[in-house]
Amino acid sequence: MTITPDQQDEIDAARLVTSRTLRPTVQAVEDILFNARPVLDQGFVRVVDYMGDDASVIQAARVSYGRGTKKVSEDRGLIRYLMRHAHSTPFEMAEIKLHVKLPIFVARQWVRHRTASLNEYSARYSILDKEFYIPDKTQISEQSKSNRQGRGEAVSENQAFEIMKLLRDDAERSYAGYAWMINEDDSGAVIDAGRPGLARELARINLTLNTYTQWYWKVNLHNLLHFLRLRADPHAQYEIRVYAEEILKIVSLWVPLTYEAFQDYKLNAFTLSAQALTTVRKLTEGASVSREDSGLSAREWNELVALFPALAGQAPQ
Amino acid sequence: MTITPDQQDEIDAARLVTSRTLRPTVQAVEDILFNARPVLDQGFVRVVDYMGDDASVIQAARVSYGRGTKKVSEDRGLIRYLMRHAHSTPFEMAEIKLHVKLPIFVARQWVRHRTASLNEYSARYSILDKEFYIPDKTQISEQSKSNRQGRGEAVSENQAFEIMKLLRDDAERSYAGYAWMINEDDSGAVIDAGRPGLARELARINLTLNTYTQWYWKVNLHNLLHFLRLRADPHAQYEIRVYAEEILKIVSLWVPLTYEAFQDYKLNAFTLSAQALTTVRKLTEGASVSREDSGLSAREWNELVALFPALAGQAPQ
Amino acid sequence: MTITPDQQDEIDAARLVTSRTLRPTVQAVEDILFNARPVLDQGFVRVVDYMGDDASVIQAARVSYGRGTKKVSEDRGLIRYLMRHAHSTPFEMAEIKLHVKLPIFVARQWVRHRTASLNEYSARYSILDKEFYIPDKTQISEQSKSNRQGRGEAVSENQAFEIMKLLRDDAERSYAGYAWMINEDDSGAVIDAGRPGLARELARINLTLNTYTQWYWKVNLHNLLHFLRLRADPHAQYEIRVYAEEILKIVSLWVPLTYEAFQDYKLNAFTLSAQALTTVRKLTEGASVSREDSGLSAREWNELVALFPALAGQAPQ
Amino acid sequence: MTITPDQQDEIDAARLVTSRTLRPTVQAVEDILFNARPVLDQGFVRVVDYMGDDASVIQAARVSYGRGTKKVSEDRGLIRYLMRHAHSTPFEMAEIKLHVKLPIFVARQWVRHRTASLNEYSARYSILDKEFYIPDKTQISEQSKSNRQGRGEAVSENQAFEIMKLLRDDAERSYAGYAWMINEDDSGAVIDAGRPGLARELARINLTLNTYTQWYWKVNLHNLLHFLRLRADPHAQYEIRVYAEEILKIVSLWVPLTYEAFQDYKLNAFTLSAQALTTVRKLTEGASVSREDSGLSAREWNELVALFPALAGQAPQ
Repeated sequence: MTITPDQQDEIDAARLVTSRTLRPTVQAVEDILFNARPVLDQGFVRVVDYMGDDASVIQAARVSYGRGTKKVSEDRGLIRYLMRHAHSTPFEMAEIKLHVKLPIFVARQWVRHRTASLNEYSARYSILDKEFYIPDKTQISEQSKSNRQGRGEAVSENQAFEIMKLLRDDAERSYAGYAWMINEDDSGAVIDAGRPGLARELARINLTLNTYTQWYWKVNLHNLLHFLRLRADPHAQYEIRVYAEEILKIVSLWVPLTYEAFQDYKLNAFTLSAQALTTVRKLTEGASVSREDSGLSAREWNELVALFPALAGQAPQ
Repeated sequence: MTITPDQQDEIDAARLVTSRTLRPTVQAVEDILFNARPVLDQGFVRVVDYMGDDASVIQAARVSYGRGTKKVSEDRGLIRYLMRHAHSTPFEMAEIKLHVKLPIFVARQWVRHRTASLNEYSARYSILDKEFYIPDKTQISEQSKSNRQGRGEAVSENQAFEIMKLLRDDAERSYAGYAWMINEDDSGAVIDAGRPGLARELARINLTLNTYTQWYWKVNLHNLLHFLRLRADPHAQYEIRVYAEEILKIVSLWVPLTYEAFQDYKLNAFTLSAQALTTVRKLTEGASVSREDSGLSAREWNELVALFPALAGQAPQ
Repeated sequence: MTITPDQQDEIDAARLVTSRTLRPTVQAVEDILFNARPVLDQGFVRVVDYMGDDASVIQAARVSYGRGTKKVSEDRGLIRYLMRHAHSTPFEMAEIKLHVKLPIFVARQWVRHRTASLNEYSARYSILDKEFYIPDKTQISEQSKSNRQGRGEAVSENQAFEIMKLLRDDAERSYAGYAWMINEDDSGAVIDAGRPGLARELARINLTLNTYTQWYWKVNLHNLLHFLRLRADPHAQYEIRVYAEEILKIVSLWVPLTYEAFQDYKLNAFTLSAQALTTVRKLTEGASVSREDSGLSAREWNELVALFPALAGQAPQ
Repeated sequence: MTITPDQQDEIDAARLVTSRTLRPTVQAVEDILFNARPVLDQGFVRVVDYMGDDASVIQAARVSYGRGTKKVSEDRGLIRYLMRHAHSTPFEMAEIKLHVKLPIFVARQWVRHRTASLNEYSARYSILDKEFYIPDKTQISEQSKSNRQGRGEAVSENQAFEIMKLLRDDAERSYAGYAWMINEDDSGAVIDAGRPGLARELARINLTLNTYTQWYWKVNLHNLLHFLRLRADPHAQYEIRVYAEEILKIVSLWVPLTYEAFQDYKLNAFTLSAQALTTVRKLTEGASVSREDSGLSAREWNELVALFPALAGQAPQ
């Protein structure tokens, strides 16, 4: 379960208390503030706080007073200009704080993004809940043959169920060992009054990497977009990608102009290398091109053909 | 002049527009939001936006839901505990954005604090105003003899006036050269229609280091406190210290519990080295101590005597 | 086993090839370069590369040409001065690169130190070895009663063996599940040619947190000392503390003057809060002091008594 | 003058002392180590120390033991793959330390790159030399009309000489005021024994922004390449660009494979936005395209035409 009824009650109560503020406020984020948005089988993302909006990016770019009086079309143009030319500092002027519940192996990838603030649930101090990520059967795939760090074809349904059972059994057995060592059961009751509980910092080492943890993560918009560019990418592991995709939706509500520019100039853009540029230019000029002459690797060539199918007609592989 | 009437009008107008928000809100900061607080002769600091409060530090430390129901005394104790034990990450969970107008030589010291976001007024794109910092006569002091990077005695009043005149004359002459090169006078009018204006990025190199610039500076509470610890220190140059002191007042309004803990555990605390610790311990035990036996340098010894005058009686220097 | 014979052969071979360099070189580090230094049951730390030495800190502090001609005593004094006054940037001018093999739960604490460069063994791409950390029986302790995140008394030997067996069994079972899912045994042989191997990025989620991983970690001396201050501290978890202690030994070989100053001004120093300072001053002056009047918490008072036993005579608790 | 005879003697002496090391060593960098490479009229860049080489990037990417036995062609392919896919962490595993002498206004742009270590000559502690940057006449250009932050046409030779004279006169007059205030002439002699010298930290505020300063700057290869991408760009101000270009030459000597990949995938690459991608695809397929239908701004369209001249024939502007 993503969130307990008690937690939901607390969130509902927090959503009843509003204040007046002079700060930039985004109604679309206020509407979803504090609410947990489910990700994976038991995880979530929720916005806990935010600072700034599209206009804050503009304001910083102009280093002007007040919130500006320019027309929306000009603001949109300026944000697109900033995004396109990698003028990244104005995007650092908006900030968001998320509460995320996620499996430990996802948390391990996430922290590779270092320019952010983080407070994680401490398993030295507290006891982790009995919650594991078990992939959906559609996600249980064999090792990719083409991409050495990704997934290939889904396995058969029978195999998927066998794997799901194995993952669940091993996680539960490890958790049972954990509970036995700390000498507390799932409900917080002491299991055996006759023996001491093992130090929590030690007992936790028995848990599997799909155990859920949670944290507060605070990041500025520039670094968040960088995170999203890498983690919403099809090459990212599915389990972190779904978090990135959910956060992308939040970004679209929070800073719609920035989101649009990010789509056009980053997510859906493509960088042509010097060699690719020459190849495509020749193609547009009707000159003959071939993989051999292009200086491109087979993989680069194939990617280019996928973007410019006319290339395939020119130089069949 | 710190701020123009037009700028003040714009700020006044911005202060009229409030929104409802679910976010943590600090009334004492709302009361001063956007307003320029004068620093030096023509500079200022003003709060442009903020995220979080003392409770946000607590919340992150607890990684709990909602805003917590603990009593104030417990919150105070937790914040003091975090400050004392250098558990710094919860203090990263609050953020503030300041608009600062400051002389370039102060800006040069300020940017040495790298973990912050910054958008500065661009003198490649725009024209700098004719505003220079001229120190007050009470600040015009000779080179310190004891501290190789600080100030000693104030010079005579006559000398002070002579120096103020020199600073003003040189700054004005350099600015006049700047204006002539860009071919625009103070009011934005072209000086000589018969010749082109020099590129602004080039003309500005003629300006003196006391020319005022301005920027938006966004920083989390942890990094802000680190900045304040170094820059509100008596060894910091006076001209940056007055900015730090003004920001300290803002911090006391924004996060009063954090401010109190910061005073007690950082600003007014003192770190005893291994050797100083031994020396003071001996002193408390009535053992005889001397500078020679202590392993302390003369400077360290003198600092220790200033803190523990009983040391002086023991071992006169 | 910390390191395989093949790996040792490779290291031995690398140690045979030397070059001439004009760069600062530290013979004591050259003597240990590349060699694995055992930590925990199967982990290690080894120095892979380094830049600079004590003189590089000096050089940066002086921003001078060449390597300087000052006497050692002056260099020592300058390094102590820098350390004492938190002039940290010169310490950023030396850099070290370590190869570390460590359990995943230690790796999770380690990465909280963000200002460093890191390349970790990828379990998306490669297969993790069957190596787990099993604590020594002397380290198997109950949850601390006084410190909510630490260890208390060691458990009985029987209980320790029971726990060691449980940790080993659960880790092995989870690893067996992992191997079955990727369909490769320990030696790299396919287990069952009739079915595909699961994607490695997915299979790994079944592993326990005491599985060993490894990485290259590159950090400057300033950030390294900050890491060591927090992680060589008695409050740090034992399993990361032993890495910190081993790295401290390396630091003592690499930059002996910096190491000495670090001991005196950081590791073995103590910071007195404003209240503690007043209390100790009174004590040195023969005035009466008590916990109640001091403004110190019970915990702070007890720590102060431990440092200044004369306090106890004054005001028995 | 870029460097004094005394400084050159010190460098020559330092270049005589070599050590044996097991560390990766690059002969082409050893050949230029410590030597000042002139930039602008009086500035320089010189390599003071370095860590790692192309093989260090490879080694980190492989997290393998020793220096690897793969063929050069494979290393080249891996480095190109890393560069192309923004796998940036292995490039953080090489580090370089530069000593740079540069005008203050260039230093102000340079420090916007925050992820680096820096020790600058202190004008609070020491006296700045009488050295200013005066642009060459070929660099004295009017404000650009098309690009609001750049340079346009060169001014006439007469105007250029007039501007050079103005810059020199104002810098010298400001420096004379500085010298008078600190009461020391160019040679370090006291000017007037009858009055005290003003605090250096205060006197320096009279200097102009083209005064030379110097610093040690240490940065990893990844962040260095990011710096170079932005500062070797034609849109960067000329005076910082020439530093970037000189450092690019150093990079080509130090890590030739990385340098080549950087050229192909970053410096000489071009990113097509979603709209530009569609436009170019249509062009390759013989479909009609126009600026109006493309969704591109006039500026984006013109840039695209410059890359793909066939576009111009299709849709004259």
